[in-house]
Amino acid sequence: MTIALIGFDADDTLWHSESHFALTEDRFHALVTPWSEPGETADRLLARERANLELFGYGVKGFILSMIETAIEVSDSTIPPDAIAQIIGWGKEMMAHPVDLIDGVVDVLESVGSTYSMVLITKGDLFHQESKVAESGLADRFDRVEILSEKSPESYRAVLERCGGVAPSDFVMIGNSVRSDVLPVVEIGGHGVHVPYNITWQHEQVASEHESADYHVIPSIKDVVPLLAELD
Amino acid sequence: MTIALIGFDADDTLWHSESHFALTEDRFHALVTPWSEPGETADRLLARERANLELFGYGVKGFILSMIETAIEVSDSTIPPDAIAQIIGWGKEMMAHPVDLIDGVVDVLESVGSTYSMVLITKGDLFHQESKVAESGLADRFDRVEILSEKSPESYRAVLERCGGVAPSDFVMIGNSVRSDVLPVVEIGGHGVHVPYNITWQHEQVASEHESADYHVIPSIKDVVPLLAELD
Repeated sequence: MTIALIGFDADDTLWHSESHFALTEDRFHALVTPWSEPGETADRLLARERANLELFGYGVKGFILSMIETAIEVSDSTIPPDAIAQIIGWGKEMMAHPVDLIDGVVDVLESVGSTYSMVLITKGDLFHQESKVAESGLADRFDRVEILSEKSPESYRAVLERCGGVAPSDFVMIGNSVRSDVLPVVEIGGHGVHVPYNITWQHEQVASEHESADYHVIPSIKDVVPLLAELD
Repeated sequence: MTIALIGFDADDTLWHSESHFALTEDRFHALVTPWSEPGETADRLLARERANLELFGYGVKGFILSMIETAIEVSDSTIPPDAIAQIIGWGKEMMAHPVDLIDGVVDVLESVGSTYSMVLITKGDLFHQESKVAESGLADRFDRVEILSEKSPESYRAVLERCGGVAPSDFVMIGNSVRSDVLPVVEIGGHGVHVPYNITWQHEQVASEHESADYHVIPSIKDVVPLLAELD
């Protein structure tokens, strides 16, 4: 095959993100423990996040709002306002948190970028994603940065169009989410590479019937370089 | 002059937006009236929104979070959680609200689009803006849709680049905000057209020393067609 373009996801592929959500969620479980056990809290928060996705989209602000709603619900409207202020404070910490690059990312981009065109493709909150891209210092290594509201077959097709009409069969997408980074790319005829992160948000997990799709799985971002050498 | 590209702002230029914020803010003033008079509430909310802008960016979710923080502050942490749930409910109403086109917009786009390339340039929450663009039914009338996190000289330059390298002097931008739609465009050498909306968020208001910049002011979006005929 001829590879014309490599796409990289950002959150949990280039830098840590889900671990910050998980840490905040642990704090949240502890905060509402007088009214709800962690297992129940987790279920109710996930249900609330899913219900809110179609209005709020992805990102920290929607996560904060879903935590506040869940806290009010599970406490039967008895949670003190200071606890709600605390939740907002955690959200602000998340948004202000320095970008932690995943180990090996700079070398991988250096090496891949010397041979291929690269596009960073991320989804979620435009403002926060732009801030992270800027702060990461990685923006200049990419030919393009694409921030999408959702990663779907249509939105990947539109990205390839904007990248000068790259054929899906010449496109390799690398990311930690099978649902967002791999399956929609495979669906349009592109190549998906799954680099698992140690935590996956439940909403991004896919049922096993989808796991038969044809894609590559590598244990670390560092394995991208030998994989591309093998594919090209 | 030769006009190569017409840019249209969206919120309060193509459809109503600020009136929904103002209505929600009126409800908010009434909600916290036991602790704070409307004038004081307005000042504190604006201060909070401005302080939050650099973390949250523009949009409804940040507005909801700023209202919640202000409610907790002015009530000295005594506001009932149900009142906070109510604020979140208003935000959801805003996000789910149908798009109300401003009178005359469809005819103007029909007419302008028959002669010129057009780009819709809006700022704010990616997910909510995309939803509104889709629901407006106007997306197909534009050659491009650009959703920015901030409207600055740099971001307008980048848009013109993405539109095929249009020279700023061949670009006309039409919108309701002097700060966002007019001044940065004039700064890069483009042409700004201000179509005032009946309400302007205080953050978007500009000090009078900037008002000497050279740009056009028309009373209604309907006046775009004769103005372009005169300019071109």
